[in-house]
Amino acid sequence: MNMSNTGKIRIAILGASGYTGSELLRILLRHPNASLNALTAEKNAGQAVAAVLPHFAFETLPDLIKIDAVDWKNVDLAFCCLPHGTTQEVIAAIPKNVKVIDLSADFRLTSLEGYATWYGHAHRAVELQKEAVYGLTEINRAKIKQARLVANPGCYPTSAQLPLIPLLKAKLISADDIVIDSKSGITGAGRDLKQGNLYAEASEGIHAYGIAQHRHAPEIEQGLTEAVGKAVKTTFTPHLMPMNRGILSTIYVKLSPGKTADDLRAELEKTYSGERFVKILRTGAPATRFVRGTNDCVIGVYADRVEGRAIIISAIDNLVKGASGQAVQNMNAMYGWPEATGLEALALFP
Amino acid sequence: MNMSNTGKIRIAILGASGYTGSELLRILLRHPNASLNALTAEKNAGQAVAAVLPHFAFETLPDLIKIDAVDWKNVDLAFCCLPHGTTQEVIAAIPKNVKVIDLSADFRLTSLEGYATWYGHAHRAVELQKEAVYGLTEINRAKIKQARLVANPGCYPTSAQLPLIPLLKAKLISADDIVIDSKSGITGAGRDLKQGNLYAEASEGIHAYGIAQHRHAPEIEQGLTEAVGKAVKTTFTPHLMPMNRGILSTIYVKLSPGKTADDLRAELEKTYSGERFVKILRTGAPATRFVRGTNDCVIGVYADRVEGRAIIISAIDNLVKGASGQAVQNMNAMYGWPEATGLEALALFP
Amino acid sequence: MNMSNTGKIRIAILGASGYTGSELLRILLRHPNASLNALTAEKNAGQAVAAVLPHFAFETLPDLIKIDAVDWKNVDLAFCCLPHGTTQEVIAAIPKNVKVIDLSADFRLTSLEGYATWYGHAHRAVELQKEAVYGLTEINRAKIKQARLVANPGCYPTSAQLPLIPLLKAKLISADDIVIDSKSGITGAGRDLKQGNLYAEASEGIHAYGIAQHRHAPEIEQGLTEAVGKAVKTTFTPHLMPMNRGILSTIYVKLSPGKTADDLRAELEKTYSGERFVKILRTGAPATRFVRGTNDCVIGVYADRVEGRAIIISAIDNLVKGASGQAVQNMNAMYGWPEATGLEALALFP
Amino acid sequence: MNMSNTGKIRIAILGASGYTGSELLRILLRHPNASLNALTAEKNAGQAVAAVLPHFAFETLPDLIKIDAVDWKNVDLAFCCLPHGTTQEVIAAIPKNVKVIDLSADFRLTSLEGYATWYGHAHRAVELQKEAVYGLTEINRAKIKQARLVANPGCYPTSAQLPLIPLLKAKLISADDIVIDSKSGITGAGRDLKQGNLYAEASEGIHAYGIAQHRHAPEIEQGLTEAVGKAVKTTFTPHLMPMNRGILSTIYVKLSPGKTADDLRAELEKTYSGERFVKILRTGAPATRFVRGTNDCVIGVYADRVEGRAIIISAIDNLVKGASGQAVQNMNAMYGWPEATGLEALALFP
Repeated sequence: MNMSNTGKIRIAILGASGYTGSELLRILLRHPNASLNALTAEKNAGQAVAAVLPHFAFETLPDLIKIDAVDWKNVDLAFCCLPHGTTQEVIAAIPKNVKVIDLSADFRLTSLEGYATWYGHAHRAVELQKEAVYGLTEINRAKIKQARLVANPGCYPTSAQLPLIPLLKAKLISADDIVIDSKSGITGAGRDLKQGNLYAEASEGIHAYGIAQHRHAPEIEQGLTEAVGKAVKTTFTPHLMPMNRGILSTIYVKLSPGKTADDLRAELEKTYSGERFVKILRTGAPATRFVRGTNDCVIGVYADRVEGRAIIISAIDNLVKGASGQAVQNMNAMYGWPEATGLEALALFP
Repeated sequence: MNMSNTGKIRIAILGASGYTGSELLRILLRHPNASLNALTAEKNAGQAVAAVLPHFAFETLPDLIKIDAVDWKNVDLAFCCLPHGTTQEVIAAIPKNVKVIDLSADFRLTSLEGYATWYGHAHRAVELQKEAVYGLTEINRAKIKQARLVANPGCYPTSAQLPLIPLLKAKLISADDIVIDSKSGITGAGRDLKQGNLYAEASEGIHAYGIAQHRHAPEIEQGLTEAVGKAVKTTFTPHLMPMNRGILSTIYVKLSPGKTADDLRAELEKTYSGERFVKILRTGAPATRFVRGTNDCVIGVYADRVEGRAIIISAIDNLVKGASGQAVQNMNAMYGWPEATGLEALALFP
Repeated sequence: MNMSNTGKIRIAILGASGYTGSELLRILLRHPNASLNALTAEKNAGQAVAAVLPHFAFETLPDLIKIDAVDWKNVDLAFCCLPHGTTQEVIAAIPKNVKVIDLSADFRLTSLEGYATWYGHAHRAVELQKEAVYGLTEINRAKIKQARLVANPGCYPTSAQLPLIPLLKAKLISADDIVIDSKSGITGAGRDLKQGNLYAEASEGIHAYGIAQHRHAPEIEQGLTEAVGKAVKTTFTPHLMPMNRGILSTIYVKLSPGKTADDLRAELEKTYSGERFVKILRTGAPATRFVRGTNDCVIGVYADRVEGRAIIISAIDNLVKGASGQAVQNMNAMYGWPEATGLEALALFP
Repeated sequence: MNMSNTGKIRIAILGASGYTGSELLRILLRHPNASLNALTAEKNAGQAVAAVLPHFAFETLPDLIKIDAVDWKNVDLAFCCLPHGTTQEVIAAIPKNVKVIDLSADFRLTSLEGYATWYGHAHRAVELQKEAVYGLTEINRAKIKQARLVANPGCYPTSAQLPLIPLLKAKLISADDIVIDSKSGITGAGRDLKQGNLYAEASEGIHAYGIAQHRHAPEIEQGLTEAVGKAVKTTFTPHLMPMNRGILSTIYVKLSPGKTADDLRAELEKTYSGERFVKILRTGAPATRFVRGTNDCVIGVYADRVEGRAIIISAIDNLVKGASGQAVQNMNAMYGWPEATGLEALALFP
């Protein structure tokens, strides 16, 4: 382990001025093993962090710099919070002794054709794409511990795969006819200046977007396909709704013959019994407000009135378990620290 | 037509202090053919309307009275906005020459067994239940025009039945495997004092409720069953989310062999071509914010990536097309007035 | 009156794609004397209105064009909803037979020095500035009826001047020591893409802005100065808070010797007794939610515990009485129509 | 120090099911020196905490009991989160060796007449009232360290007194003519079932309440009076607005002759230079969203345009520094632990 002489990992955050960068700062500033050595933001380079994130005004942090100005000799681990598409070349240029956890979508799809189809161009860092490990911690922990480059999962895929992968592996549900209806808070759309993200546009309403075209669909299906061993195609509809944080995924599945919703719940309880962050409800329904600010994924399973069908609901905070929290969980795994380090805060409710 | 000498229908609103009552006041105070003669509210009887609905402080309205105090000789039509279960006996006691539009669920289910099963007791006004006409205006207009007692549809059923009934009638989709995932604003839960409806509980979150048990499921299925000619069972999950008004229903269907999403859209366009309030989108996705305060139901149809499947999305304002607006539309139909009378306001966006 | 042969005024809206433009469309599409002949939006020229304002998708409207493309021969009246600073030259180029109601700040200040000081450059249409009539309808009605160019008041100034001008004129309060603490919904910040207007930034919080520097201060003071006959300077602090519409101004004043809060209320009742849109409360407190979507200004007056002081609170919808509604009210006054024409909708609550 | 053999303080929370109780749980479950031994909730006694606060479903906590069932032999410290008025008798019955931090208003006013006037009845625990120490930590720390009974300050008084007390002590501002205009999130109104706290009532609007009559006025004035040495009376108007957490107080003051806003800021910086939780801004304006979930009070000072006047703005999270966080800070002070223990979380933004 290559650390600074404070005994802490020296960290760079590339793209520190957006919401996932900000959330990493929130978590890492209180992480006992983290030292924040470099923070980049191309447009705001030269400014203090507080100029773009005023709630850090009274914390000790380095000023924002350009990526080009990062001194990689003083960095052990980089979190990469850059836009999709631009990330692969940036990461390719990082010295190989630096570990990388990438929060973009650039390294999530293992299929080169899949990437090209969904992102509209050939991948520009093919070797890295082969090397990258998909960072769904509870499912992929062993590989993550050995990885140099972790592709941190998307928010929707995290909420969908955590319940579905164990159930598909155990052959308790059909791989056909899976409907995933997801509702996301606005931070899922990032901090970019888009009209649809304005308060007056986003408040007091809900709408679906990316219908049958969202790039998280192939990511979800990649995980399910691996679990089943044959190609899985799902129906996935994301919705944008007025809350800051949270994803609720309501998932409609067909039970395998003779199986019940109780069997599903039992399987999930078994799978996640030793896990700190995946929690299976026995009563009540998951609500995003009760995971706000936490790294939890809360899951409920319900029998449908239609025979042979069940409803699964999962709730996460899209910025934590759906992004920066899981990234820190992966860092903890990579360094052999307890996975909950820095992630122990309870939900901020109300 | 039995009118007052002002040439206006004399109206009573039973239960005027809740949200559907308030919304009737908002619409009817500007309706050219309506005279508000009696407003009831058991707990607030004796008070001015403004004591419970301050935005009417500067309108001329009768004070709130108890139902017992209504002088039925001066009433042509009663809108009934009372809680489920208590309504049937109240309506049974209204003189037979008074027309009634009931916004509760008491007369919506035509099956006596269905009612008893879902509401936990035998119906207490069986003759009226037989007489009642289900008030989904666009579908049932002919009967509504002749009705004395109209059972105004529920909000979720309105949003689900308007797109599904024509498609099932035309055999374009399968009657099996219909998944209805609905998202409702908080006014759908009424003005009752329940902890879950508090701002600090309902804001910044979303959750499902009544999973596989909601009473609007049999109401939806009754309409679909009638359209198909055999029993239809659906998967229906309502969610509560932080907005005042609106329901978005995302509906997942299986196409009949050889049919496409375009066929579905064309059928809906044909069915609703002469309608003022049902609008089929050719581009974009329905959003509740764009029907806020209107009697519109906006519908979009989309091909799914999964072969042989389509996604239908409908948006209404739950208090207008989902309740009081449709009730006024039904009144207009019953009296032979243009159906849009009093309902012409455009969406209040933002 | 130069009308089209439909007997309606032919209207152009310059800058139809923002919130005040959108609100004019909402009102004027249902106004019996209005015909919308030209709608401009520089960036979106060539598109249908529904491309930027989807709730008008099913209305008949001309496509968006550039200002240069307006055929002024077919326009009787132009509403100008352009950004401050750019408006003066646009209006200077409009043929003189076309009436203009300007919703920007360009013609509100009568003092050339005042304009130059607060806006950072000399006025570029000095003759027009002299001619412009300040459009606070209830106060300035006589002049508005004769005007060719009306400078529609700002939202904050409307909320502050309506209560303060009559009280200052009647010498019931001191012209010194007036504190105006205003809280505005987000639409007050316009539809521009600014980070602070994003949902995730603006929700769940409140902050003051433009402290002691907001350009509405001199506009407020101009009206008060006119009422008193000598220079008035006020303390004015605007705040931005998470609601779409509404301004609440809490105003702290010193009573003239011997005067009481009741005297203030009586004076306001007298002043506004014949007015349709200014409403003085006798009990309770104004709330923005109860004027949502209306052209009302609701005012309450309260005795302070500190002797010799009173608190005045006013509530308006910033997009209606604070902008487009008052603009239509002014149009009605200019053409001699009943002032409430097209403005009769009740509050959309909840 | 009387501790359990785990080396932790054994804590009871009386009234654990409301928002301040819930917030204490959130903080204390992660506090290294706290053991939660007894949680009371009269109406929900016998239930698990998760029945009323689902976000604690996966934490180890004792079930809710009635106050009568608390075994005081196993309690070192009680936090009291009961309604005003009922608290004094409950606390009087607690064994004298148990320390008490009371979050109600019952022991905040030192004047017996003051209490009787504002609360409508004579105090029922006069000896305790004399003993109680007002728990504004930064101002009263020395006494708090010695106290058995701490009266935790109200949320509005915390936000107003922290900036005003040092400025009055230093004679930089006049004690006359102080206007405090405060805006509070909805949790400030508690978890009680009141119509005004429903989402559909409280969202999308703002209103003032308790105008010139709010019980926090005498509490604010008590602290200011003590600072000045003579009776101070203020103008105080609280407003309720749609956010879960936060109070922003905009305070209008008259400068002492020759003093400037910069003098005020310098004095506050000096006073609070060693403090962890009171932060003085040099640029920008305080916003409640940037203190969400923290124990911070952020203060800004601004010159007014009106000569001789200044504007002070403070922001707190009403549930943390305005209630449970300050209570834990007081606990830390009473036991000699670092005051930030358990209170180090950064703001949860967005």
